[in-house]
Amino acid sequence: ARIAVLAGDGIGPEVTEQAVRVLEAVAAARGHVFTLEDALVGGAAIDATGSALPEETLAACRRSDAVLFGAIGGPKWGPSAKVRPEQGLLALRKGLGLFANLRPVTVNPRLAGASPLKAEVIAGVDLLVVRELTGGIYFGEKRREGASAFDACTYTEDEVARVVRVAARLARGRRRKLTSVDKANVLETSRLWRDVATRVVKEEFPEVVLDHHLVDSCAMQLVRRPADFDVVVTENMFGDILTDEASVIAGSIGLLPSASLGEGTFGLYEPIHGSAPDIAGRGLADPYGTIASAAMLLRHSLGLEREAALVEQAVARAVDGGALTADLGGSTSTEAAGTAVVQALE
Amino acid sequence: ARIAVLAGDGIGPEVTEQAVRVLEAVAAARGHVFTLEDALVGGAAIDATGSALPEETLAACRRSDAVLFGAIGGPKWGPSAKVRPEQGLLALRKGLGLFANLRPVTVNPRLAGASPLKAEVIAGVDLLVVRELTGGIYFGEKRREGASAFDACTYTEDEVARVVRVAARLARGRRRKLTSVDKANVLETSRLWRDVATRVVKEEFPEVVLDHHLVDSCAMQLVRRPADFDVVVTENMFGDILTDEASVIAGSIGLLPSASLGEGTFGLYEPIHGSAPDIAGRGLADPYGTIASAAMLLRHSLGLEREAALVEQAVARAVDGGALTADLGGSTSTEAAGTAVVQALE
Ligand SMILES: CC(C)[C@H](C(=O)O)[C@@H](O)C(=O)O
Ligand SMILES: CC(C)[C@H](C(=O)O)[C@@H](O)C(=O)O
Repeated sequence: ARIAVLAGDGIGPEVTEQAVRVLEAVAAARGHVFTLEDALVGGAAIDATGSALPEETLAACRRSDAVLFGAIGGPKWGPSAKVRPEQGLLALRKGLGLFANLRPVTVNPRLAGASPLKAEVIAGVDLLVVRELTGGIYFGEKRREGASAFDACTYTEDEVARVVRVAARLARGRRRKLTSVDKANVLETSRLWRDVATRVVKEEFPEVVLDHHLVDSCAMQLVRRPADFDVVVTENMFGDILTDEASVIAGSIGLLPSASLGEGTFGLYEPIHGSAPDIAGRGLADPYGTIASAAMLLRHSLGLEREAALVEQAVARAVDGGALTADLGGSTSTEAAGTAVVQALE
Repeated sequence: ARIAVLAGDGIGPEVTEQAVRVLEAVAAARGHVFTLEDALVGGAAIDATGSALPEETLAACRRSDAVLFGAIGGPKWGPSAKVRPEQGLLALRKGLGLFANLRPVTVNPRLAGASPLKAEVIAGVDLLVVRELTGGIYFGEKRREGASAFDACTYTEDEVARVVRVAARLARGRRRKLTSVDKANVLETSRLWRDVATRVVKEEFPEVVLDHHLVDSCAMQLVRRPADFDVVVTENMFGDILTDEASVIAGSIGLLPSASLGEGTFGLYEPIHGSAPDIAGRGLADPYGTIASAAMLLRHSLGLEREAALVEQAVARAVDGGALTADLGGSTSTEAAGTAVVQALE
C-alpha cells in the first residue's frame, strides 16, 4: 500500500514521525509493505513554493491509498495573509472529495485525572462525531466589500444525504443511536439538514433511532451527559466546534484522531489538534492522536482491521504503562511515547 | 418605571411569575413603583393572533423602560412551520436594536455538585460573554431553492465595533481581560471581526488586554480552564453555542440570566434557557435565571444597582438555604424557590 505523509507545520512533523514509526513496526511485524512518500503542505509548502497545496502534493495524495496528515499553521502565516496554511488543508479535503470526517471519542480510565469533567460523567463514553467536511460556510462564497464582510453557507440535499448515510451506517454497527445536530429554529440550511436526515434514516436505516438536537443544547449535553451519545452527525462548522469541545471528555485534545473519507476507501487521517507552535520542536507534543489516526488509516483505507485494533490496544497499553506526555500530566517525550507504543505492539 | 412582561411559552409563564413577584417585593421594600404590562409573544402569540410578535406587543415594549422575557417555542410549532415562535424573539431583538447580549456566568460553591466539571476547575469562575445579537447568520438572507438551502452571514465594521465597545467597557470595570472569539482562519466575517476588535481596543481601550481565540479552541478552553476568562466577545452564532456550553460551569442552565442592550438604557432580560415543554406546567422549572435577569434589569435599565445586588444576594441565599429545584438536584418547586428569594430579600 502507498501512503502520502504530509507532516505540515509546528508539532506536525514530530507527531507524524512517531505515527510513521508505528506504521513501519506494524508492517514489519505482519508482513506488509507500506510505501511512504513525504509531501509539503501548509506553511512549510508556502515557504517552499508559495502555495499551501502545491500540485505535486495533490498528485502524491492522488496516487496513494491514504494520506497521513500532521497539522498546519502558525503565527508566521497570520489570518490576514493572502496565502494561508489552512487553505492547503481545506483544498485537500475538497479536492479529494473527503466529505465525511469521523472523530471518535473514547475514555481511558487511566486518564480521568486529565479531564476537567468528573470521573462519573465520562465513565463509559464511546461516541463518534461524523462532521460534514466539504460544504457549509467553510466553502461558500466569501468576500469583503468596503466596510462589510460576507460568508455564504449552503447545503444541497445530496451533500446532506451522503454524510448522513455514512453516519447511519456506522450507527447501525454500534448502538444504533444517531443524533443529528442543527440550528433548525434559525437557519434554512439547518431545516434542509433536518428534513434530509429524517428522510434518509427513515427510508434507508429503519433500525437506527434518530433524534435531533439544536447545536446550542448539544454543546451543553455533550459535557453534561456525554455517555448518552452514540453517533452524532452535523454540518461542518458545528462539527468543528463540538469536536474540540468533546476533546475534554478524553482528557486531552492530543489524544484524538480523525478520518476524512469520501465515497471509496481512500482517506486522509489527522489528529484533531492543531500545530501548537508554542511547544513545537521541544519534544513535548502528544503523538497518540496521530498514532490513533494511523490506526484508522489501517482500518478504513487499507482494510487491515486487525492491525488497526493492535495499534489502538498498543496506545492504550502505553498510556496504562504511564507513558504520559505533558498534556496528560506526565513528562514522557514525544519520541518516548512513540517508543512505548512500538514496544506495546510486540 | 414601566416594564413589559412577555412570558411566552412552556415554562416561560411559570418562571416569569416568580421574577415578577421578586420585582414587586423589591418595589414595595424600597418605595419604587413598577408598572407591569403583559404582552403576547412566541407560540402563545401565534395561537392568539397568527403572528409571533404582534404589533401591540412591540408597541408595549417600546413604551416601556425594559422588557422581562420568559421563553418561547415548543413541539406544537415545529421548525418547518411557516410562522415560528423564534421569529418573535428574533424580531424583538432586531426591532428594538438590542445588539449586545450580556451573559454572565458565576459559580455558587453550594452547587458544585450539580456541575459535570470538577470543583477545582470551576472554583472562582466569574466570566461574562457578550454576544452580538442582531447580525451574522441569524439575520442574513435565507432561502431554499429546489434541492439547496442558503444562509448568508454578514457583518459590517460598525456592527462589530459597537459590540466590542460594550464588551471592552465592561472589561475595563472588571479584570481588564477581553477575549475575542472568531474563526479567522476560515471566515471572511471573522477576519473583519478580528481586525475591528483589534483596532477598537487598541485605540479606545488601551488599558484592556485583548486576545483572540478561534471558536473551536475556545469551546475547549471554556470547559478546561473557565477561570482564565474574564470578558468574552463574539458573534451571534458562536455566542449562542458557547453560552449554552458555559452553563455547565454554573451547574444548570436554569440559573443563568441575560441582558440584551442597545445604545441607551432600554433592554430585554431573559434567562438563557429555553421553554422546556417537557416540564412545563408542573412546577418543576428553575426560576433563578429569570429572577437573576430581573436583577440585571434593575441594574442596566433602571439604574438601581443596589436593588440589583440585593436580588442577586437573595438568590444566592435561597440557594445556600437549600431551595434547590430539580435541575439543581433538589425538589423545591418553582413557586417555593420564588418564595425563598422573596424571603431572603428581607
Ligand atoms: C485548521 C482549520 C481550518 C480546521 C478546521 O476548522 O476544519 C481545524 O480546526 C480542524 O478542525 O481540522
Ligand atoms: C430561541 C433561539 C432563537 C435563541 C437563539 O438562538 O438566539 C436561543 O437559543 C437563545 O440563545 O436565546
